[in-house]
Amino acid sequence: MNIGMIGMGRMGANMARRLRRGGMEVVAYNRSAEVTQQLAKETGLTAVESFEAMIKQLAAPRIVWLMLPSGDATQNAIDQLAPMLSADDILVDGGNAYYKDSMRRGAELSKSGIHYIDAGVSGGVWGLENGYAIMTGGEAGPMKRIEPFIKVLAPGADAGWHHCGPVGSGHFVKMVHNGIEYGMMQAFAEGLALIKGREDFNMDLAAITEMWRHGSVVRSWLLDLTAEFLKEDQSLDNIKPFVSDSGEGRWTALEAVEQGVPAPVMSLALMMRFASQGANDYPAKMLAMMRKGFGGHAVKGD
Amino acid sequence: MNIGMIGMGRMGANMARRLRRGGMEVVAYNRSAEVTQQLAKETGLTAVESFEAMIKQLAAPRIVWLMLPSGDATQNAIDQLAPMLSADDILVDGGNAYYKDSMRRGAELSKSGIHYIDAGVSGGVWGLENGYAIMTGGEAGPMKRIEPFIKVLAPGADAGWHHCGPVGSGHFVKMVHNGIEYGMMQAFAEGLALIKGREDFNMDLAAITEMWRHGSVVRSWLLDLTAEFLKEDQSLDNIKPFVSDSGEGRWTALEAVEQGVPAPVMSLALMMRFASQGANDYPAKMLAMMRKGFGGHAVKGD
Amino acid sequence: MNIGMIGMGRMGANMARRLRRGGMEVVAYNRSAEVTQQLAKETGLTAVESFEAMIKQLAAPRIVWLMLPSGDATQNAIDQLAPMLSADDILVDGGNAYYKDSMRRGAELSKSGIHYIDAGVSGGVWGLENGYAIMTGGEAGPMKRIEPFIKVLAPGADAGWHHCGPVGSGHFVKMVHNGIEYGMMQAFAEGLALIKGREDFNMDLAAITEMWRHGSVVRSWLLDLTAEFLKEDQSLDNIKPFVSDSGEGRWTALEAVEQGVPAPVMSLALMMRFASQGANDYPAKMLAMMRKGFGGHAVKGD
Amino acid sequence: MNIGMIGMGRMGANMARRLRRGGMEVVAYNRSAEVTQQLAKETGLTAVESFEAMIKQLAAPRIVWLMLPSGDATQNAIDQLAPMLSADDILVDGGNAYYKDSMRRGAELSKSGIHYIDAGVSGGVWGLENGYAIMTGGEAGPMKRIEPFIKVLAPGADAGWHHCGPVGSGHFVKMVHNGIEYGMMQAFAEGLALIKGREDFNMDLAAITEMWRHGSVVRSWLLDLTAEFLKEDQSLDNIKPFVSDSGEGRWTALEAVEQGVPAPVMSLALMMRFASQGANDYPAKMLAMMRKGFGGHAVKGD
Repeated sequence: MNIGMIGMGRMGANMARRLRRGGMEVVAYNRSAEVTQQLAKETGLTAVESFEAMIKQLAAPRIVWLMLPSGDATQNAIDQLAPMLSADDILVDGGNAYYKDSMRRGAELSKSGIHYIDAGVSGGVWGLENGYAIMTGGEAGPMKRIEPFIKVLAPGADAGWHHCGPVGSGHFVKMVHNGIEYGMMQAFAEGLALIKGREDFNMDLAAITEMWRHGSVVRSWLLDLTAEFLKEDQSLDNIKPFVSDSGEGRWTALEAVEQGVPAPVMSLALMMRFASQGANDYPAKMLAMMRKGFGGHAVKGD
Repeated sequence: MNIGMIGMGRMGANMARRLRRGGMEVVAYNRSAEVTQQLAKETGLTAVESFEAMIKQLAAPRIVWLMLPSGDATQNAIDQLAPMLSADDILVDGGNAYYKDSMRRGAELSKSGIHYIDAGVSGGVWGLENGYAIMTGGEAGPMKRIEPFIKVLAPGADAGWHHCGPVGSGHFVKMVHNGIEYGMMQAFAEGLALIKGREDFNMDLAAITEMWRHGSVVRSWLLDLTAEFLKEDQSLDNIKPFVSDSGEGRWTALEAVEQGVPAPVMSLALMMRFASQGANDYPAKMLAMMRKGFGGHAVKGD
Repeated sequence: MNIGMIGMGRMGANMARRLRRGGMEVVAYNRSAEVTQQLAKETGLTAVESFEAMIKQLAAPRIVWLMLPSGDATQNAIDQLAPMLSADDILVDGGNAYYKDSMRRGAELSKSGIHYIDAGVSGGVWGLENGYAIMTGGEAGPMKRIEPFIKVLAPGADAGWHHCGPVGSGHFVKMVHNGIEYGMMQAFAEGLALIKGREDFNMDLAAITEMWRHGSVVRSWLLDLTAEFLKEDQSLDNIKPFVSDSGEGRWTALEAVEQGVPAPVMSLALMMRFASQGANDYPAKMLAMMRKGFGGHAVKGD
Repeated sequence: MNIGMIGMGRMGANMARRLRRGGMEVVAYNRSAEVTQQLAKETGLTAVESFEAMIKQLAAPRIVWLMLPSGDATQNAIDQLAPMLSADDILVDGGNAYYKDSMRRGAELSKSGIHYIDAGVSGGVWGLENGYAIMTGGEAGPMKRIEPFIKVLAPGADAGWHHCGPVGSGHFVKMVHNGIEYGMMQAFAEGLALIKGREDFNMDLAAITEMWRHGSVVRSWLLDLTAEFLKEDQSLDNIKPFVSDSGEGRWTALEAVEQGVPAPVMSLALMMRFASQGANDYPAKMLAMMRKGFGGHAVKGD
C-alpha cells in the first residue's frame, strides 16, 4: 500500500517527510521536479515527474493526496487526474478548499466511482515534528483505507484526527478552525497592544507572555509562538503592519451571515486585517470629508 | 436682558451672530481680542477684554454662556468666573463637556447659589443659517430665563430645543447624539466604499448620493452634505485617510460599557477612526509575526 | 404606451396607484385577482388574470415590471414570462433581488433580445405620497423608454432616480442602500437605549428625538419616523425584541467580505438582528459552560 | 516567615491549600469562621477570627494577602487594616481590582510606609493542582520578600509569575489577560455554533474539539476545558443562554477607548455577553418599530 502526494510546498513536503519517517511508501509529484528529487534523496520517497507516472506507481485501488493551493491549482489537478483514476480509487484534497467546492467535487467524482475525501490539515510548519490535526469528510469505507496514513500524519495514532461527516465536512471544520484562529490571534494582538500602549508602566511583553504560558487561562499554542518571537523583538519596528487574509477566514464570515449566526469576533478579526491592507483608507477619507462638511474640521492633505 | 458669551471660535462666533440677528444683546469675550472687535463691528455686539469687564456689563441676575473647548479651557474659565458670579446668576456651558464633569460642576456651583446649565449644541458651521439643535440640563427656573436666547439660537421658537432633565442631561444627550452621528457616518462611509469598490460597474457616487436624497430611506442631512462634496471630487485622492475623534464619541462608547448595553455600531465607528489614526499598526504587526510563527508566512519588511 | 405590473403587494399596489395618479396606463396582475379588481375600481387600471392576458394588453415593444418577493417568486415569473416576450421587450425587476442573480438573468434574457433592467426601489409605505427613490441598472436605450414611468414613480421628474450602470448595478446600489439603512437604524437604537438606560435623568425620548429633527447633525427620515412612534409609546413594553433581516442586509455583509473592505457597522447591525432572533443563544450557553469549567461559576438552569 | 490571607472563597481557600502543601505558614481569616476552622483541620493553617488576631500572629515585617471581591469588600478591608499595619509591612491585593484603584491605594498606603503590591491571579478552580499564573506590580524590595510564597503558588518556581512593573501593573496585566480570555472564549463559541448550525453534516462537537486539542493551531487550555464538558453534553439544552461579565472585561474595553486603540474583538465579546443578559432587547424593539414605521413590517406582540 502506498500513497501519491501532489504538491511539495511547505505543507506537502513536510507531510511527505512525516509519512516517510512513519515508514509509509510515498510517491511524490511537484511542479518543479527538483524539489521531489531532493526529497527522494532525503527521505527515500519515489519522485515522479507526471501524474501519469504517479498513477502507474500506485497500488490499486489508489490513494492520491493533493496538497495544492485552493482554487485553480486544485481544480486543474482534479480535472487532469479524474480521467486517469479508476472506480474505487480515493482522491484526498488536503488543501484549504471552500467546503462548498469540495461538496461539488465529491458529487462529480462519485459519478465515476471515485471516492473523494476532503481533509483539513492544521499544524503549519511545526506539523513535521508535532503532527498535524486532520479533520476529514467523506464515506466511511474509503476513510478506513486512508487511516494508516492519517495515523502517521496526526500527532498520535489515537489523537488529533477525526472523521467529521460527509464530503465537505472536513474542509468545513478546518474553515471554522481558522475562523477561531483569527479571533484568538486578534484577541492577543489587541491585548498586547494595550500593554504596550501603557507606556508609563514600561512593561516587558516577552516576560508577560512567557508568564501567561504557565497556569493562566489564555495559555495556548498561539501564545507559545508569540512568547517566542517577542523574546527576539517586541518593538516590531521593522515589521510592516500588513496582515494577509486567506479564503478560510472569509468563508467563515460568509458562513455566519448565511446561517444567521452572530459572529462578531470572527468577522471583526477579518475586517481588521482588511484595514491593515489599506481597505479602510477610502472610508476614512469619506469620514474626514464629512467632518469638514458639517463642522469645518480641517482635512489632512486638503 | 443681555447675555455674556465667552469663546468666539467657529461655534461661538456664529452663535453670537445668530443671537444678534435675533435682536439679542450680547457681551462677548475671546482670548484674542481681535475677533471680538471684528464681531462688534459686524454685528453690534459689545466686546470686552476681560471676565471682569463682562461681569460689569451684564444685567443681574447674569447669564454667562461658555463656548470653549471641553477640558482645561472650560474648567479654568469656570474656576476664574465662579468667584465673580453672584447667587442666582446662571452659567451655561455650551461646549462639549463630559456629562459627569458637568454634574460635578453643577453640584459645586450650586453651593454658591449659581445655577449651572449644561447645553449640548449641534449644528456645526451650518447652525448660523439653519439654527442649532440645543439640548439642556438643569433647573426649571433658570432654564425659563435663558429661553429667549435659546429660541433665537434654535431653528425655530418651538422646534429644535429641549430641556432634557437635571444638570448633566444636556451634555449626556449631546454625547449620545454624537455617538449616533459616528455610527451614521461610518455606515455611509462603508456603503460608499463598497460602491466604489465595485469598479466594473463604474458608478457615479455623486449622482447616487444625490438620488438617495429624494425618497430613499437613508435620506438625511449627513447625506445632503456628502452628496455636496462628492459633486466636487469622488476620488478623494488628495485627502489623507485620517479621521479625528472627539471626547463625545469616546464617552458614548464608555457609557455603553458602563451601562452594560451592547453598542457595537457606535463602538466600531469609533475604533475604525482609531485605526485610521495608525493605532491598528502594532496589532497588525503582531498578527503578521504570529502568521510567520505558525505558518512560515512571509512578513513584509521582515 | 402602457406598462404591465406583476405583484400587487404592499409595494406594487402603491406604485400602481402612483403611476395612475400620474396618468400612466397600467395593466396589473396579482396572484389573487381580488386585489387587482379592487385596484381597477379605485384607480382605473386594467386588471388581468394571467400573464398571457397581460402580454396581449401591452403595446409592443412591451414593458413588464415585476414587484415580487425575490427568490423563487421572481425566478418563476421570469421563467414563465420569458417565452411570451419578444425581442426588444423590456423586463424590469423592481423587487429586492441579489444583484448577482440579476446579472445572470440579464445575460440569459439578452440571448432572446429581451432587455432586462434591475430597479432598486426605496420608499416603503410612504412612497405613494412621497415618491420612490429608484436606482436602475441596464442598457441606455431601454432605460430611456421606461423613463416616463420612472419620473412618475420618483419624488420628482428630475430627482430621486438614477441609472447607475450596467445590469446588476441597480440592485447593487439598492443593496448597499439597505446596508447603510441597517447601520443608521442600529445607531439610533443604540443611542436611544443609552438614553433610556440613564434612568436617573428620567428623559423623554419622544421630545428628544423630536428636538433632534431640527438643526441636529443626525436629522434624517429615519429619525422623523422614530420621533413619530415614540410619541405614542416609548416604553415599547408590548413589542417583541425580535428584528427580522432581509436578503439585502446579508448580501451587503457578504459583499464587504468578498471585496475585502471593512464594514463593521453594517455587519454588526446585521448580527445584532441575528442575536434578537435567538441565534446568540447557543454561543451564550457555550460561554456559560466555559466559565463554569475554568472558574466554577454557576450556570443558570444548570 | 508566615503570610496572612484574608478571604477564603473559592480562590483564597485553594491558594491557602497550595501554600500549605508547599510548606508555607499561613494565618487565615474568613468572614465566616467555619471555613477557616475547616481549613485549619484540613491543612494545618492557623485560623484567626479577626484582623487584630491575624496581625498579632504575623512575623514583622508582615505580609497580608487579600483575596476578596473587588470593590467595597476590598476597600473596606484595606481601610480597616491600614491603621493596624506598620511601616515596611506588605499588603498584597490578589483580587480583581481595577488597576486605577490599585494605583490610588498604593499611593495612599505608601504615605504610612506600607508597601502595596497588586497581584493578578489566574488559574481558576484548577490552580490548586496546576498552580496560578501570578502577575504583580509594586516595588522591587517588597516583591523579593513575597517571592517565596509566589513561587509556591505559581506552576513552577521559575515559571508562571512575573513582576510586571510599578503598582497597578499587576492588575493591569491581569485585566488585559481577561480581555484576551473574553475574545478567545467568544471565538470558540462562535465557531462551535457554526458547526452545530450546519445540521446536515451532523457533526460531533465533542470529537471535533478533542481532535483540535492535538496538533491544531487553536489548541489551548480553554479548548481542553471545552472538549471536556462537550463530552457530557453538546446540546446544552438545559443551560440558560446567560453569560455574566466581570469588571475586568469591562475595564479592558474602557482602556481601549481611553488609549485610542481599536479592540473590536474584546469589545464585541463583552457586548455579546450584554446581549445575552437581555440588554439587546430595547434596541431590538426600537428596530422592530422602525421597520414597521417605514415598511409596514409586522411587529411581534404588536
